[in-house]
Amino acid sequence: MKMKIAVLSGDGIGPEVTKESVKVLQSIADAFGHDFQFKEALVGAIAIDQTGNPLPEETLVLCKNSDAVLFGAIGDPKYDNNPDAKVRPEQGLLKLRKELGLFANIRPITAYDSLLEKSPLKKEIIQGTDMVIYRELTGGIYFGEKQLNEEGTVASDLCEYAQYEIERIAHLAFKAAQQRRKKVTLVDKANVLETSRLWRRVVTSLAKEYPDVTLDFLFVDNAAMQMILNPSQFDVILTENMFGDIISDEGSVIGGSIGLLASASVGKGTALFEPIHGSYPQATGKNIANPVASILSAAMLLEQFSLHEEARLIYKAVETMLNENIGTIDLNKDNPSSTSEIGDVIVKLI
Amino acid sequence: MKMKIAVLSGDGIGPEVTKESVKVLQSIADAFGHDFQFKEALVGAIAIDQTGNPLPEETLVLCKNSDAVLFGAIGDPKYDNNPDAKVRPEQGLLKLRKELGLFANIRPITAYDSLLEKSPLKKEIIQGTDMVIYRELTGGIYFGEKQLNEEGTVASDLCEYAQYEIERIAHLAFKAAQQRRKKVTLVDKANVLETSRLWRRVVTSLAKEYPDVTLDFLFVDNAAMQMILNPSQFDVILTENMFGDIISDEGSVIGGSIGLLASASVGKGTALFEPIHGSYPQATGKNIANPVASILSAAMLLEQFSLHEEARLIYKAVETMLNENIGTIDLNKDNPSSTSEIGDVIVKLI
Ligand SMILES: CC(C)[C@H](C(=O)O)[C@@H](O)C(=O)O
Ligand SMILES: CC(C)[C@H](C(=O)O)[C@@H](O)C(=O)O
Repeated sequence: MKMKIAVLSGDGIGPEVTKESVKVLQSIADAFGHDFQFKEALVGAIAIDQTGNPLPEETLVLCKNSDAVLFGAIGDPKYDNNPDAKVRPEQGLLKLRKELGLFANIRPITAYDSLLEKSPLKKEIIQGTDMVIYRELTGGIYFGEKQLNEEGTVASDLCEYAQYEIERIAHLAFKAAQQRRKKVTLVDKANVLETSRLWRRVVTSLAKEYPDVTLDFLFVDNAAMQMILNPSQFDVILTENMFGDIISDEGSVIGGSIGLLASASVGKGTALFEPIHGSYPQATGKNIANPVASILSAAMLLEQFSLHEEARLIYKAVETMLNENIGTIDLNKDNPSSTSEIGDVIVKLI
Repeated sequence: MKMKIAVLSGDGIGPEVTKESVKVLQSIADAFGHDFQFKEALVGAIAIDQTGNPLPEETLVLCKNSDAVLFGAIGDPKYDNNPDAKVRPEQGLLKLRKELGLFANIRPITAYDSLLEKSPLKKEIIQGTDMVIYRELTGGIYFGEKQLNEEGTVASDLCEYAQYEIERIAHLAFKAAQQRRKKVTLVDKANVLETSRLWRRVVTSLAKEYPDVTLDFLFVDNAAMQMILNPSQFDVILTENMFGDIISDEGSVIGGSIGLLASASVGKGTALFEPIHGSYPQATGKNIANPVASILSAAMLLEQFSLHEEARLIYKAVETMLNENIGTIDLNKDNPSSTSEIGDVIVKLI
């Protein structure tokens, strides 16, 4: 199989971890006789530094002309602590999601048996957790109109949803549930928000097309509790953009390290694969960041193109490695491997 | 001391738990020679059923003419699952907060030593947790304009904040921090939201008036992780309405039961005291709900009127009771006490 992969490694630890997943993809290509062409492009703070634009036109064109995008991380403290910055790294990622029409962000959360002890949660709580979050990614308060009055004293963000935006991701979530434990939980705040009531109405009506799937509802405040109290109750969680951002980062604690969590963003255009973690500036350049989330994102990329056998090899390699207690410092304090060593171990296991 | 207390016990388990906190307040009054006058009024689903209005005018007038409001819980599944309901129980609480100008909701979260084992989190993670969340309560997306187009296909909620709304609660948070460990953490999503950037700007500038307090920032997604990974890092958390709703319910898992968490809502008018938990319909009428959150809310009420000695008695009684492993079914599965028994135990200990 021939595939053009745009590599946008971005900021902070992005380049370090992405380098490892490219290494892993290349080894898969070698082993299976595929032809993966990697092309790098700028995004985020580094793109602002070099071009003034967090998503240079060139990068966007490359992504549109590629079969998949492998994304690193985005963000830089120098912008975070400057509320007056006109251009921000995150705009690059948000614009890319929008331009590629990536309306669904898919985030699987599983508790690896070998890591049950690493979680801040008790073993008996997380055991058996196997959920996937479908987060809407191109709507809601992220993309609604933003205003700031001239005096800079009143600001607003509009959260807006249209029925079709809800339907298209809901269909994906229900279809996923059909292949899993057949349960969808809609997370919203329908007792307060008009948009949430629209979600509830649209999803309830669409659920009739999937009679084999059970639909239930949770207010987001309660969901934030249930995620910790009893995470194994969840199969597929469906939710809007902002709630999905919060709930899925929260859920990342279940697995013991956010450095393990991958995601796929799919929709109309080229699909994008990225770790859930951020740019983690404190670790940048130290060769200590956990590349597993990026490597698992590469596996999700392969699955997207029905290269299931290849993806399975990566999953298995990661599991074997974790079972052998090989990990970066977030997982193995006493005898940590470096970022690049982890990539090498996975390649060897493949 | 003479005090008029409006009792709005509301829906679900609200009446059961509030009955116990009234009992406790009465015993305090008896012991200290205070004169507490309790007057009940309708709010929520029960108010809709009886008057068509979730906050009858009479109730509002009573609250305005009282020294404090003791609130139970609100909400009924028959409205939750009906996105088309025109009148909703929650509107009663939201309107009450707005009418009384209760812009700050104060939610302390502590890990009781005797309950360290009950939490889904590991003991070493929660030990020493002692934070208080200052949640803005009368602004943001809860109160911004809501729209639904005629066809019912597009909905929106406006999140809006003005500088003065941020300043007044920020002052309270910084003052609280001065009495505590001198740290304020602002939780926002300043990399995406205009309102969050306004929060960051206003709070940063106001922090200069409190040179003895350290201010730091967390994006809400990261905060949702940190709350579980390392809750003892927090002293005072300051945040907007919706993020506060989510983060504080999430934080409730630290203490082992949401049935322990009290809150005070303060601002311009009569202050209101309520447990964080909801109406918990499944437990209604069974005399099994945990009244401790309501009883601790009553203690916060006493503190508000500088009755510190009285409040301390309640805190001590609750702690003694928990140390003796006396609790409702959420805390003591093997030998649970009933709701009213817990009230009696506290009264006896006082
Ligand atoms: C970087 C930021 C804009 C982004 C988001 O909030 O969507 C990130 O947190 C994520 O979850 O991918
Ligand atoms: C009942 C609901 C409207 C309310 C809120 O979201 O504010 C509740 O969850 C709370 O936190 O007091």
